[in-house]
Amino acid sequence: MADRLFIGVDLGGTNVVAAAVNERGQILSRHKKRVTKARTREELLDRVCRTIGHAIARADATEKDVVGIGIGAPGPVDIANGVVFEMPNVPVGRVDFRTELEGRFSATCLVENDVNAGTYGEFWRGAGRGKSDVVGVFVGTGTGGGIILGGKLLHGKNGTAGEIGHIVLNPGGPLCGCGRPGCLEALASRTAMQRQVAEAVEGGAETSILELAKGEITKVRSRTFRKALGAGDSLAKRVVRDCAENLGYGAVALVHLLNPECIVFGGGVMEALSEQMLPTIRQVVEERCLAGTADGVEIVPATLWDDAGVLGAAALVMEATGVTLD
Amino acid sequence: MADRLFIGVDLGGTNVVAAAVNERGQILSRHKKRVTKARTREELLDRVCRTIGHAIARADATEKDVVGIGIGAPGPVDIANGVVFEMPNVPVGRVDFRTELEGRFSATCLVENDVNAGTYGEFWRGAGRGKSDVVGVFVGTGTGGGIILGGKLLHGKNGTAGEIGHIVLNPGGPLCGCGRPGCLEALASRTAMQRQVAEAVEGGAETSILELAKGEITKVRSRTFRKALGAGDSLAKRVVRDCAENLGYGAVALVHLLNPECIVFGGGVMEALSEQMLPTIRQVVEERCLAGTADGVEIVPATLWDDAGVLGAAALVMEATGVTLD
Repeated sequence: MADRLFIGVDLGGTNVVAAAVNERGQILSRHKKRVTKARTREELLDRVCRTIGHAIARADATEKDVVGIGIGAPGPVDIANGVVFEMPNVPVGRVDFRTELEGRFSATCLVENDVNAGTYGEFWRGAGRGKSDVVGVFVGTGTGGGIILGGKLLHGKNGTAGEIGHIVLNPGGPLCGCGRPGCLEALASRTAMQRQVAEAVEGGAETSILELAKGEITKVRSRTFRKALGAGDSLAKRVVRDCAENLGYGAVALVHLLNPECIVFGGGVMEALSEQMLPTIRQVVEERCLAGTADGVEIVPATLWDDAGVLGAAALVMEATGVTLD
Repeated sequence: MADRLFIGVDLGGTNVVAAAVNERGQILSRHKKRVTKARTREELLDRVCRTIGHAIARADATEKDVVGIGIGAPGPVDIANGVVFEMPNVPVGRVDFRTELEGRFSATCLVENDVNAGTYGEFWRGAGRGKSDVVGVFVGTGTGGGIILGGKLLHGKNGTAGEIGHIVLNPGGPLCGCGRPGCLEALASRTAMQRQVAEAVEGGAETSILELAKGEITKVRSRTFRKALGAGDSLAKRVVRDCAENLGYGAVALVHLLNPECIVFGGGVMEALSEQMLPTIRQVVEERCLAGTADGVEIVPATLWDDAGVLGAAALVMEATGVTLD
């Protein structure tokens, strides 16, 4: 008999990735498709379904082997009904994934916020494995978080728990993408780092960062900072340190409020710069947390990176269909 | 048959209060004693036990009616073993309350942090009644918090969850009592408000606040600010608004991270100034939280005030002895 198969889907602003996953958390296949050209809900759903179809085929399976499909979506989610209200980077409006996917595949469909799914992936098979209270902080274009307490994702009254990117760190600070000043995301994300470089260059700072990105600030990636650090660039040093310090203050809030066993830092910025940033984050926590509160609280880099989302989404739908995860 | 009786004890830096409570949450008697003269662990225990004895007698009961004793203590607690590690304002060192009290009374003894006990009291019989996800924020000499999720107090890895007073709001801000700069408590507590008045007076500000406190800054109480506000004092207005704004930023962190059903503001500062401060706190939450995240999240004043601690401590030991709370 074939393995019972689950599909984890990680829907991002640029690509959708679907992976076929078995109950032991092994990824049997992956397929990726761009979603940037999807202008309508129907086009988006069509791309997502075809991506799932490819992942199934690549796993040498058929649709009837698939028990559940879990989707991590980049926006606020109505978990109870499997609906995504809106996705700022996939502007096709509200999508009723559960109804649509359960209509096309005979499998249970579950929808979760992408950051929550990623946190759940790291908890199940990544850096938070074996713990029950784990917080994930994902630092990329923006900064988001997910909270697992007692082995369960915390959703809260409006399903929005874990929004660490918009805690206020500096009420009069720089403007955040959300339109409000001084959010953590405005001080610690790739967008924040790009802004600091642009401001410094405007102010006459000498730096190799822009050259490394062909002169375009929007082409400055997390890897660009790593390269510039390697070349001893002092602006890169300051910007990376600043970002890490602010993430440290975010971690202090997590240690003081939730006192988790483990804080996992993931996302593109961390994938490129965790070696540079984590020591600073840990130092801020050490210095700024009350005596005893941070004892034994692990502050660690993600280990699954891009796979966290698909594994977490698959794990969540496994549990929803009665699988007991190990 | 007499009611099964429980004792709730609220141990503060100045007084210990014991109350006899029945399973329905009615307070049958109270007794209060000063603890400032207790120089040793033995003297403190003696005062606590005599206070409990008086509360029992005043309830027309005897020691054998008492099923459980719950203690809220102002310091970090080892809940599993009923031990208080230290109490900054009752400097008698480590106290093994469970062993001591179970030796003197034949009742189950449970020890909890005082702020957690107060939060549990407001959850059971106060402003958070009927909810399951409730955060308590207590603003007095210092600022502390307690978190209830799914009807259970969150303790975290080191038992210190809920320490909202020491999340960092302004990394370069004024020094906190904990020795670190810019904690919420350094910006929003009675101590912070007193400091702002002292600084303003030193800078030549005109105010009636000091006169109302007989010229001594340490005698400026929360009620003093209320009186000064009533007299149209502009410094009082600024200091109260500033404190409320910073509590608002704390509430923003709670809404974004935990997304609770209800945030209850208690403590001496709130008891005197909740009418003045809550509108500002709500306004900051409204302005600074992401769309949808704060919908329906109640931000309310405590209703039990001084009784929250004894009721919460009693409720916790009731549950520990198998009582199902309504």
